[in-house]
Order: sequence, then structure tokens, then C-alpha cells
Amino acid sequence: MEENQKPKAAALDALVALVDSDMQGVNRTIVERMQSPVALIPQLAGHIVAAGGKRLRPLLTLSAAKLCGYRGDRHVKLATCVEFIHTATLLHDDVVDESELRRGRQSANAVWGNQASVLVGDFLFSRAFELMVEDGNLKVLAILSRASSVIAEGEVAQLITTNDTDTDEAAYLEVIKGKTAELFAAACEVGAVVAGRPEAEERAMRDYGMALGIAFQLVDDYLDYSAKQEALGKTVGDDFREGKLTLPVILAFQRGSDEEKTFWRRCLEDLEQTPDDLPHAMALMQKHGSLTETLERARFYGEQARRALDAFPDAPVKTALRDIVDFCIERAY
Amino acid sequence: MEENQKPKAAALDALVALVDSDMQGVNRTIVERMQSPVALIPQLAGHIVAAGGKRLRPLLTLSAAKLCGYRGDRHVKLATCVEFIHTATLLHDDVVDESELRRGRQSANAVWGNQASVLVGDFLFSRAFELMVEDGNLKVLAILSRASSVIAEGEVAQLITTNDTDTDEAAYLEVIKGKTAELFAAACEVGAVVAGRPEAEERAMRDYGMALGIAFQLVDDYLDYSAKQEALGKTVGDDFREGKLTLPVILAFQRGSDEEKTFWRRCLEDLEQTPDDLPHAMALMQKHGSLTETLERARFYGEQARRALDAFPDAPVKTALRDIVDFCIERAY
Repeated sequence: MEENQKPKAAALDALVALVDSDMQGVNRTIVERMQSPVALIPQLAGHIVAAGGKRLRPLLTLSAAKLCGYRGDRHVKLATCVEFIHTATLLHDDVVDESELRRGRQSANAVWGNQASVLVGDFLFSRAFELMVEDGNLKVLAILSRASSVIAEGEVAQLITTNDTDTDEAAYLEVIKGKTAELFAAACEVGAVVAGRPEAEERAMRDYGMALGIAFQLVDDYLDYSAKQEALGKTVGDDFREGKLTLPVILAFQRGSDEEKTFWRRCLEDLEQTPDDLPHAMALMQKHGSLTETLERARFYGEQARRALDAFPDAPVKTALRDIVDFCIERAY
Repeated sequence: MEENQKPKAAALDALVALVDSDMQGVNRTIVERMQSPVALIPQLAGHIVAAGGKRLRPLLTLSAAKLCGYRGDRHVKLATCVEFIHTATLLHDDVVDESELRRGRQSANAVWGNQASVLVGDFLFSRAFELMVEDGNLKVLAILSRASSVIAEGEVAQLITTNDTDTDEAAYLEVIKGKTAELFAAACEVGAVVAGRPEAEERAMRDYGMALGIAFQLVDDYLDYSAKQEALGKTVGDDFREGKLTLPVILAFQRGSDEEKTFWRRCLEDLEQTPDDLPHAMALMQKHGSLTETLERARFYGEQARRALDAFPDAPVKTALRDIVDFCIERAY
């Protein structure tokens, strides 16, 4: 796999290279616009921003705009909005998930506490809307304000399905569409809207982002049970310890014997876990092929994402966006 | 005081009566627009909405629009936005303050937990922006998105000043302007903007709201150390237990002997408190006149609010808005 992996990781670099100066504009705008006379705000926001991450979502806005032939500079500010909304949800997720590690660093929550994470998240979210209002396009505002509601709905839906082994694949799909894929979709759609493209292309960009986002989250949920995860500086089994009903678990539970179902309920509903339980859970997933099937689903949505790009003429950025689909999926290997 | 009090409480009723059908529209819109297929959202939002409260902020938007001669119905949706933003901050405050009681009922946080409070707050906040975007006025969007940032900044500033006895009156004023008065100001300003009034009137309405909001919060901070508080179904001394540096404390600390300063530091910085400490703190405030002076400041800002109304022609709604200033202050008695 090592040999295959390099070209895939290179896909991200290729896309970054195509929108390099715009992306530098985004990075500058992020730093400029997270400023506040209240010093804790840029401190805490800077912590999560410095942690870097791939900046995949603003990258999608920039690339979508490029694919749609946009030549202005409004997309830089809008890509910053998208990243601020994402950062705000990360900060609020830290409260939500009590996650100890985020991108291999201490979470903001662990350093500054719940209260600061919530409030700085609120600030970034508000600032995102200020940036959108400065841009002044009501269609963009409608897309991103709706996306924000849908994200919150997805996060609440996830809260409800957590510790509930009755959760089925359809409910899971609704959760990940809301909490993850909607912002991918909106990030892409905004790129087409800013370019003033016909509705069919806006729709195609949105479909691309939605399918990519679903694939991305499926791989994330796969990785939580994968040895590969440790290489990424994240702990394995976070979802298991929190009792999250992700697809690998849902499929293994549904296919499990009564005895296995009792095991899953104890671990995920009652959260009564011993150190042996995670390895046992992973063995059950292996036995029922639920990890492999999760990746198959990711590949299915990846294919949908690639097909959505058919609406656009060939161009280096189209190739790069297609390769990004592979990148998102192949990081599982 | 009893005899004076009735007409003051009646001031709120008088204002409500003047915009009654609009207010019913707001109440309907609140219930309609907090709906979501994710059942926990309307459940939790309904809990805090059912708790009622005075709906002072949307009332200000409706009254300001009326004072400015507005005759359409856009203000109903915008007043709903204002209330949604307020409700979102209440939900996030519950995480922040670990407050046990809110309006005499169990806080949403105590019932559903931190995570749900954060996420449903996010939903209401996003929904507020969706409503604004539906309205489609960029000036309104600019006012309310900026207000949201300023509120978050005020809340973070409060977090920083908590447990810090070095906090002075200027820092305190910045905190309450941000966390409370800014939304009062924006709520009023939006009423003038929707009516398409000249900038001087927008400014006057904003000034009215800002001064009223400051007075309102000063009285709130006074009430936290007042016996009157218990009659309102709230506990006394919440701010003391959390180590919040409100004006009654700031003034008493500054005027205190070295021994008293040591007392304040132990209680508010180290949060080492015995049951005798709150009564002792209240006695010190009495001794230094800091509670009385807090009310005097409230009256000063109340007078500023009243003066801001001079820009408008006499009308029943102007009288009612003037009386509302008294109502906000006199609830201290």
C-alpha cells in the first residue's frame, strides 16, 4: 500500500498548488478576522487554527470556484467563513465529545475549559456571518445559514443515537449527512454560486461535496477502529468508549448473535467496559466484515462524488478534485 | 414602595398591549421556527421558551418599529431572530455558569446536559440567521451578526474577569455592554432600520437600547445580592459563589481594608467559601454603600435611555418605552 499512498497524498498537494495564492489569502484572512480586543479569543482560536488540519473545506470552496471559472476574490472571504464555521463546530464538539485529542494536540477544551470553548466557538460562528454579510450575497447567506442549522441538527441527532443500539444505517446516514457532509456540500456550492454559474452546476458542485463528505465521514468512522489511526496521532476506539453508533458497529451489532448483542449493549449502552472489550469489539467487526463494508460504502459515495464532476469540462482542477476523492478514501490504508 | 410598584409593572403590560397582535405573531413564529425533525430540538427549545420570561428584547424591536411609524410585518420575523439569539445565549450560558436555576425552573442543562444545551443553542442561533436571510435586508444582517460577535466577546471577557479581583469598573462596563446591552441596542436599532428611518433615529433607538441594557444588567447584578431576588424565584449569591466581579463587589473591594480585601480574594479568587461568607459579603457591601451606588449607576443609564427618546415625537409607545426604563430599574425594589 505504501507505494499507492504517496500519489494519493500528492492529490491534496496538487489541489493546494492549483489554488495556492487564494489559499494563502484564506490563511491571512483567518488570522486577521479571528482577532478581538478580548485576548483569549485569538489565543484559543489560534490554538485550533495553528493545529492546522488540511483546511479541506475552504480548499473545496476555492477549487469549486476555480472549476466554475471564477476570477474575482470574493471566494477567499467565503472560504474563510466556511473554515470559521468548521472551527466553531470543532470547538463545540470538544464540549460534546470530551475528546482528549484533536489532530494530535491537546483539545482547546482540555486547556481552557468548556466555557471558553463554547464562547469562542460562538464568536467564530458570528464572525463567519459577519464575513458573509460583508460579501453581501443573499444566496450565499441562505446556503451557509441553512448549512449551519443542518449541522446543528446532525450533531443533536448524533447525541440522540449515541448509546442507542437500535440506531440503524438510515439514522446513521442522516447524522453524518448533517454533521459532516452538509458543510462539504455548502462549501462546494458556494464556489459555484460566487462564479454565477447556472443552477445545474451549483447543484452538481453541491452533490459532489455531499457525496465526498459522506465518504469522508465513513472513512473517519472506519479509522476509529483501525491501527492506521495511531499513525495519525489519534487514539483508537474513542467512538467505542463514548458509545457512538457508527456504521462499523451498527453492522456488527445487526449481524451479531444474541450473546454478541448483549456484549454490544453492555459496552455501548451501559458504557460498562473493560480493557479487553475494545479488542473483542474489533474482532467481532472483523468477523462480520463490517469494517470492510464501511469502506465499500465510502467507495460507493466516492464514485458518486466523481460522477458529479462530469457536469464540468476537463481541467487540471477537475482532475485534482477527482483525485481528492481518492485521497479521502485511501487515507484508510 | 408597594404603591409605586404597581404602575411600574403595569408599564410592561402597557407596552405589551400596544404591540399585542405583533407580539402574538412573534410567539407563533417562535414556536413554528424552532421546529425540527430532530425531536430533542423543539423539546429542549420549548422548555426554555415555555419558561416564558418577559420577551423584553423582541418587545423592544416591535415597539421601536412602532415608534418609527413602521406599518409592515417584517419586524415580527426580526423580533423572533432577536429572541432566538437571546435564547441561544441563555442555553450557552447554562453551560458557562453552571446555573442551577433559570427563571425559577430547572435549567435546560440540568435536564439534558451540556452537550444538548450547546447544540440546541447552535441550532437556534443558526435558525435566527436563516430568518434574517429570509427577510433579506443586509443592514439588519450586519447589525445582528455584529451584535452576535460582540455578545460572544462580552461573554469571554466576563470569563476572564471572573475570579479576578483586579477587575475595575471600566472592565465591568465593557463586559455588560457586550453580554447584555448590545442585544438590547441591536433589537431597538433593527426596529428603526426596518421602518427606513434616517440614521439619526436609528442611532437614537440604538442609544436607547444600549443605555437600557446597561441599566438592566446593573439591576440584575444588584439583585443577585438582594432579598428581593428570592421573590423572583432565583437564588441569592450565585455571582458570589462563582466569583463573578460585578459592580457591587468591585466597589466594595476597592473601598475595603486590607483585611477585607483578603476576605474577597479568598472567596472570589480561591472560591474558598463557608456559609457565613455570603452574609458577611453583603454586610461589607452595605457598609461601603456599593449596592446603593450600583442602583445609582442604573438610574444614571436609565436617564440616558429616556433622553435618547427625545428624538421621537410624543406617542403612547414613546411613553410606554419611557416607563419601561422605570420598570427595569424599579424591579430592584
